[in-house]
Amino acid sequence: MPEFNAPLRDMRFVLHEVFHGPALWARLPALAERVDADTADAILEEAAKITSQLIAPLNRSGDEQGVAIEAGGVRTPDGFRQAWQTYRDGGWVGLAGNPEFGGLGMPKMLAVQFEEMLYAANCSFSLYSALSAGCCLAIDAHASEALKASYLPALYSGQWAGTMCLTEPHAGTDLGIIRSKAEPQADGSYKVSGTKIFITGGDQDLTENIIHLVLAKLPDAPAGPKGISLFLVPKRLVNADGSLGASNAVSCGSLEHKMGIKASATCVMNFDGASGYLIGEPNRGLAAMFTMMNYERLSIGIQGIGCAEASYQNAARYACERLQSRAASGAQNSEQIADPIIVHPDVRRMLLTMRALTEGGRAFATYVGQQLDIAKYAEDADERDAAQRQVALLTPVAKAFFTDNGLESCVLGQQVFGGHGYIREWGQEQLVRDVRIAQIYEGTNGIQALDLLGRKVVADGGQALAAFAAQIRQFSESEPPFRQPLLKALGELEDLSQWLCEQARRDPNAIGAASVEYLHLFGYVAYAYMWSRMAAVARDSLVQDPAFYGAKLASAGFYFERLLPRTLSLHASIRAGSASLFELDAAQF
Amino acid sequence: MPEFNAPLRDMRFVLHEVFHGPALWARLPALAERVDADTADAILEEAAKITSQLIAPLNRSGDEQGVAIEAGGVRTPDGFRQAWQTYRDGGWVGLAGNPEFGGLGMPKMLAVQFEEMLYAANCSFSLYSALSAGCCLAIDAHASEALKASYLPALYSGQWAGTMCLTEPHAGTDLGIIRSKAEPQADGSYKVSGTKIFITGGDQDLTENIIHLVLAKLPDAPAGPKGISLFLVPKRLVNADGSLGASNAVSCGSLEHKMGIKASATCVMNFDGASGYLIGEPNRGLAAMFTMMNYERLSIGIQGIGCAEASYQNAARYACERLQSRAASGAQNSEQIADPIIVHPDVRRMLLTMRALTEGGRAFATYVGQQLDIAKYAEDADERDAAQRQVALLTPVAKAFFTDNGLESCVLGQQVFGGHGYIREWGQEQLVRDVRIAQIYEGTNGIQALDLLGRKVVADGGQALAAFAAQIRQFSESEPPFRQPLLKALGELEDLSQWLCEQARRDPNAIGAASVEYLHLFGYVAYAYMWSRMAAVARDSLVQDPAFYGAKLASAGFYFERLLPRTLSLHASIRAGSASLFELDAAQF
Repeated sequence: MPEFNAPLRDMRFVLHEVFHGPALWARLPALAERVDADTADAILEEAAKITSQLIAPLNRSGDEQGVAIEAGGVRTPDGFRQAWQTYRDGGWVGLAGNPEFGGLGMPKMLAVQFEEMLYAANCSFSLYSALSAGCCLAIDAHASEALKASYLPALYSGQWAGTMCLTEPHAGTDLGIIRSKAEPQADGSYKVSGTKIFITGGDQDLTENIIHLVLAKLPDAPAGPKGISLFLVPKRLVNADGSLGASNAVSCGSLEHKMGIKASATCVMNFDGASGYLIGEPNRGLAAMFTMMNYERLSIGIQGIGCAEASYQNAARYACERLQSRAASGAQNSEQIADPIIVHPDVRRMLLTMRALTEGGRAFATYVGQQLDIAKYAEDADERDAAQRQVALLTPVAKAFFTDNGLESCVLGQQVFGGHGYIREWGQEQLVRDVRIAQIYEGTNGIQALDLLGRKVVADGGQALAAFAAQIRQFSESEPPFRQPLLKALGELEDLSQWLCEQARRDPNAIGAASVEYLHLFGYVAYAYMWSRMAAVARDSLVQDPAFYGAKLASAGFYFERLLPRTLSLHASIRAGSASLFELDAAQF
Repeated sequence: MPEFNAPLRDMRFVLHEVFHGPALWARLPALAERVDADTADAILEEAAKITSQLIAPLNRSGDEQGVAIEAGGVRTPDGFRQAWQTYRDGGWVGLAGNPEFGGLGMPKMLAVQFEEMLYAANCSFSLYSALSAGCCLAIDAHASEALKASYLPALYSGQWAGTMCLTEPHAGTDLGIIRSKAEPQADGSYKVSGTKIFITGGDQDLTENIIHLVLAKLPDAPAGPKGISLFLVPKRLVNADGSLGASNAVSCGSLEHKMGIKASATCVMNFDGASGYLIGEPNRGLAAMFTMMNYERLSIGIQGIGCAEASYQNAARYACERLQSRAASGAQNSEQIADPIIVHPDVRRMLLTMRALTEGGRAFATYVGQQLDIAKYAEDADERDAAQRQVALLTPVAKAFFTDNGLESCVLGQQVFGGHGYIREWGQEQLVRDVRIAQIYEGTNGIQALDLLGRKVVADGGQALAAFAAQIRQFSESEPPFRQPLLKALGELEDLSQWLCEQARRDPNAIGAASVEYLHLFGYVAYAYMWSRMAAVARDSLVQDPAFYGAKLASAGFYFERLLPRTLSLHASIRAGSASLFELDAAQF
């Protein structure tokens, strides 16, 4: 059975040594009173315990048993209810939530590391919590004070859970064409009707109530995305005194049968004139929902890192134990029948690829978390704005690049096991199945790429990119390791971005033809920045812990030598333009 | 529900127009009497019917029901038995088999196209047949006349089926350390004992008997791979008159629970002093088994193409039907709520990537089939030898590159569906699960890459590669489309190969550090050759069928503009050498 050990040493390295989290928190008043280095370490220690000892052991049994729909609703796998109780009692749902309503108000750069552990331990379990946390964020940012007071405390405490209800059978990416309706009632509430699909945690038996955030159209709404409103629709109505009232007209019609995340309930939800409450302005629901979506996008990105870390741990352990063939340079283990497969260069190539992508992703996630903390807590408005622009630029990269790398890493981790990776026993095939959804939901990775190149680079006139580049150049003045390849890759990214801005003026398809490869290119440059930052710290600290920092420097070297060159192909393919995509008529496909 | 249509037009294009199969067969005496263009077309038509109408409809139900182990043995899913009857009555198991024992003796270049259809329709079903065909090949090549006469007719007819029993719990890639034993008996037979795992079709209820080819060690065998012998071990003993006798001491201990190919029985097989018969020379079993392995390797490669084709068909159909958002250049379908997603450049990029890889693979598989036909049937020994060397060089490329591209294509096809690709309903997620094994079994793709670079290029002194390159240069004298990028990519492959030969003299890890990326590089160059050949035909035939040949030229253009540049990154990564792989101790992983 696979075993998960939270990578605490590396998390502390990133949090403390590379990004100096505690120093940042100390200068942000709201955070200064809540958290310091010791608190953060204690939280991560506790998180490591609960994820590895309580939640990880339910991962395989949850996959095998799956969720079921019964007369009373959806049943989660054995052990999930008890684990949820312990989890919620620990306050984990509201870890980064608003303290005014019971959240713990911890920094996002700490929360992302916790989320990584959670996903690494058990993707399905994690989703019940992740959706709730995102739901809280949207309510906190956009709902009335009365709704906040009624709903947030029980959501943050994990007594209730939240969902996001966007997709309909005919409307996924294109939310402008949804058909769900909301009829205003005399008391100021609404009757919400429609069918929503792919609703994670749409029903479950973990919590007493479920709070759905539902996109629907008002009777007089304009067509398209500017005619969508957001409603809070509880599974059970909430009385004025906070107690639970009657059941609302919300039901789970069926569960989807999926490739993976089988212990996560993916529901078809029917709203039949259910009572709901408007969140934010009428017809501005998409913007409000995007508060939640952006949060979810980073979280789902982290699913990619978590799965990759779990796969790496299993594969590295197996590679050190499995005896098969001899090293090319001669037997390393001559008293046994064969050498451990970690002697073989291709096995090392696979492990180092996983490692370089996962550790690079962990650093980048923590970095985006840091920008989120600055955007939220900095006293200076300009500093907040600058950080917010970085978040907007980097979130689609995080979501898509983490998860694409997550699949690559899980597939590599499965490959290290040979035939044993394809059978259930070792857990590697489940990781591949579970991570795959992260490239699809919360906006497919293709949509993330359009967001990055179309909105965050081209429509932005390259300003946010220029700010990111300026920061990298500033860092590079410290003469870090790998400075030259980092600056070269950055310069080429900037040139290409400028070329794409020009192309986009002439060719409406220029953005979509380049976007996915552009996002990957951006991701490799961002990881080069992360690896150079990590290598700089490792170089300066090497004597203190040669094993850890030496491995960090070696992994950085591997990244620059063998992974960053992937940008070469991406540049060439992007420069080919959109013409070759449009030579075939639809009928010729 | 997905629907499979055999790509007959494209298969005929490759078989007749690109590789002139019938002209080749006409000059090879053994084939001339058996097959011509009309026969080949009739066989493909019939194959299309049986695969799309009989076998494809069992694909999803087989996945859902899976195989089960019962008191009487392994039970295949509902419908498999009846389908097998029809399949075997059609003579499909022995399609390319030796006519002396009931095979149909059809050319391999035709058989590979049939195999593609079969895998596209139903991977699990295909495996029962593929293993039998390979088993026949090994028996035909190495067994005594008596064994051939006793076993081949019932195997070719599909009355019995065959397996290959290599892997043991501690021995997969490293067969030199197997523990299974064979004790000689007074009557010339052997008692075979041991446990074999991952045995495809180790038990099933499709056939009256199962013929296991088992690797085991004789009592006096030398250690390592040169002490392995091959034995034929039937499930039921065969009487002198050909009738079935008593059960042999062979049993299926359990079934593996796997990621995919769930309707294929993957068995733990126990041999407890089972009666077996030596095939070939004592201690030369590995070489004999490799006759079968090489056949299986091409076949398993074709699994990658078949799955990719099925995924492409589903995704292209969905992209033309699914309405979502508007084209960047303005609405294309203004009477509907949205445009079909095929208007979006990134959807086209995904489909064209699948198409270019799948059609390139189909051509390359047929080309390797052609070389196999020449190697087997040419009258001139030099011509046979030259073709055999090409087969040896190209088989590992085919196995690994087809299946790596198979996974990429199936993942892309799933991505085109968005969330609908992750649920069972549309069949896309099953294709991802089913194709994944093809990168692992019959020698992992990492092992294929070592075989290619270590044995077929470096140890060969680059001779087979030089012959392949000479052929490409000769073709390029006809001034085909894309001549220049083809020759450039070829020249760079040759330079790199020479550099690697030099590196390998100094550095024992040079081959393993480069091998997987080298195989991909080789594959992209080989596909460039295929696409240039296809484009040359398409250019000359364009006016006869502008839709078909125009699409072929456009797909070729896409390949050269957007996929061949992947070689740039591969070159850079390979040139980095092995050093960065060996900086970490095993304990640092």
